[in-house]
Amino acid sequence: MLPEAILVDAQKELLNWHNKGLSMLELGHRTPEFMDLLTHAELSLRELLNIPNHYHILFLGGPARTQFAMIPMNFLAPHEQAEYLVSGVWSQMAFKEAQLLKNAQEISSEYQGKFYTVPASDELKLKKNNTYLYYTPNETVNGIRFPYVPNARGLPLIADMTSSLLTEMIDINQYALIFAGAQKNIANAGLTLVIIRDDLLKKVPNPSVPTLFNYKIQAENRSLYATPPVFNCYLAAKMFDWVKNEGGVKALALQNRMKAETLYQYIDESNFYTATVSPEARSLVNVCFSICKPALELQFVESATRAGLINLKGHRLIGGLRASLYNAMPMEGVKALIQFMHAFHKDNS
Amino acid sequence: MLPEAILVDAQKELLNWHNKGLSMLELGHRTPEFMDLLTHAELSLRELLNIPNHYHILFLGGPARTQFAMIPMNFLAPHEQAEYLVSGVWSQMAFKEAQLLKNAQEISSEYQGKFYTVPASDELKLKKNNTYLYYTPNETVNGIRFPYVPNARGLPLIADMTSSLLTEMIDINQYALIFAGAQKNIANAGLTLVIIRDDLLKKVPNPSVPTLFNYKIQAENRSLYATPPVFNCYLAAKMFDWVKNEGGVKALALQNRMKAETLYQYIDESNFYTATVSPEARSLVNVCFSICKPALELQFVESATRAGLINLKGHRLIGGLRASLYNAMPMEGVKALIQFMHAFHKDNS
Repeated sequence: MLPEAILVDAQKELLNWHNKGLSMLELGHRTPEFMDLLTHAELSLRELLNIPNHYHILFLGGPARTQFAMIPMNFLAPHEQAEYLVSGVWSQMAFKEAQLLKNAQEISSEYQGKFYTVPASDELKLKKNNTYLYYTPNETVNGIRFPYVPNARGLPLIADMTSSLLTEMIDINQYALIFAGAQKNIANAGLTLVIIRDDLLKKVPNPSVPTLFNYKIQAENRSLYATPPVFNCYLAAKMFDWVKNEGGVKALALQNRMKAETLYQYIDESNFYTATVSPEARSLVNVCFSICKPALELQFVESATRAGLINLKGHRLIGGLRASLYNAMPMEGVKALIQFMHAFHKDNS
Repeated sequence: MLPEAILVDAQKELLNWHNKGLSMLELGHRTPEFMDLLTHAELSLRELLNIPNHYHILFLGGPARTQFAMIPMNFLAPHEQAEYLVSGVWSQMAFKEAQLLKNAQEISSEYQGKFYTVPASDELKLKKNNTYLYYTPNETVNGIRFPYVPNARGLPLIADMTSSLLTEMIDINQYALIFAGAQKNIANAGLTLVIIRDDLLKKVPNPSVPTLFNYKIQAENRSLYATPPVFNCYLAAKMFDWVKNEGGVKALALQNRMKAETLYQYIDESNFYTATVSPEARSLVNVCFSICKPALELQFVESATRAGLINLKGHRLIGGLRASLYNAMPMEGVKALIQFMHAFHKDNS
């Protein structure tokens, strides 16, 4: 979901950007216009998240999942091993990809047939021999959020923030690499942001990493080694401006917390709906829940869709119901959902 | 460059596609709406190029250059060797990437400090031990076109058609794999099309190919293994419909040939401009030329830009001048360019 204001703006400019008579859908990636735009986007993101200059910001084409392969390919020599905190579907896939390509170790999760929480911070069973620690602060499919930043004991900490970047404030200095697919809070699908600390680039050990998947080459070429997804970068720049106008990440985080708490509170007080995740590890942006009579869930999704409330079906991998409350979802949307849930409960009890 | 009609259409639909109240910039890739759109796009492309059912069509996110790595990663076992016809900047980069990752052999090009032609078809010095033959039918940077399809002696023929797909008719049965970045004739930057023959998938030998770069997995998942670039696919579907409306690929090819011949004829008859490529290997879509006094070229580009004729600067890697005449460029554009060239000649002689 993108804010209406951005869509209206993009529509207005689609044939004639800045009165230059050109469309962002045609703009070449080596034009001064695009260079300016990319610089603007980068500076805005630096400001929003207080990103110091010893971090590079990359705007890469393709799905975020590319990073699942790029990370072990760039940072793991054959004799080295990385550690993965597995707390849901996405971190599990990243772990499996690292295992396929190199050597990776899973850190105990509280998995019991399904993911429902994360280990307490002092119970993380980290090993000694490793190269980096990987985790997913917010698991989109499972609705699980790490309520703390894992202690990587001085090793590089790598985080998949596809669903959480810009939804709450982070201390960038705790991370060596952050990546995020654009389609949750940044732009349309097809762009992946990477924020990477200078010293990690020196780790890139393998001369046979494909050129396009080599972080060092991408950083040296300021994301322009190959053609980046120009239009997505344009929308990202707009989104960063929008976040600034909304009062910055802190202001959005406050709203996100209120939206999530309002919905969880309604669910917890209900004897008809149940939240699927333990309170300490509940996502602020993906609220997973179920109905006491699971047979009603399909009907719930269908009548919600008819009422204009879309995308409430749980992810196809785990089922159930899920409400996604990304930055662009206003509190009114949450209230409308609760009203609908209330009516649906009444009609089906 | 995209046809104005497509831009206008996309603008109209940006906030409300098919009166469904949703934006293509937000549409999920697993929705029935997107599945229908992708199926429509695929069927249109099959019709336009007569693509039989034993070829898969993939819509992949990211730059076309990803294929430079994917091809050797998927099709070359460690003891095998592929052959690359090097006829310009792009095939040279593909060759170097294959060398970096696996074992590849360069086939003699007529390179003499710069690329200006291709070898005659009976002079191709192909080796015997190889796995596939790779070439680039049209070299965008150098303006070089293979006037024939190389004889791969029964081996799989792989072609980078980024700048030529849909600009002239091809016999798909001569190819095992064709790929094309979208930004020349298909959609905006961020999408790569791959057309791959069934039997080639059986070649995928290496269990440690990253999942996302595994053609077999992408084909089995019908391009939906990871999130594809939804908006680019939407524009591609529109473009295929536009090509059909224009009379299909054959009709566009005829126009492209006329556009190119008109421009080359003017250049050849001039004593001020010179075409840089030998007549037998001249591109139909990238006309490279120079001015007898090279010092005038910068001025040429600047005054052309002021006159609304953009993108005439040669590629930064080789300099000179270049006019790109892709499908969306009408004959009027070529005539306007010739008029400008004529006036510039008069003013500077």
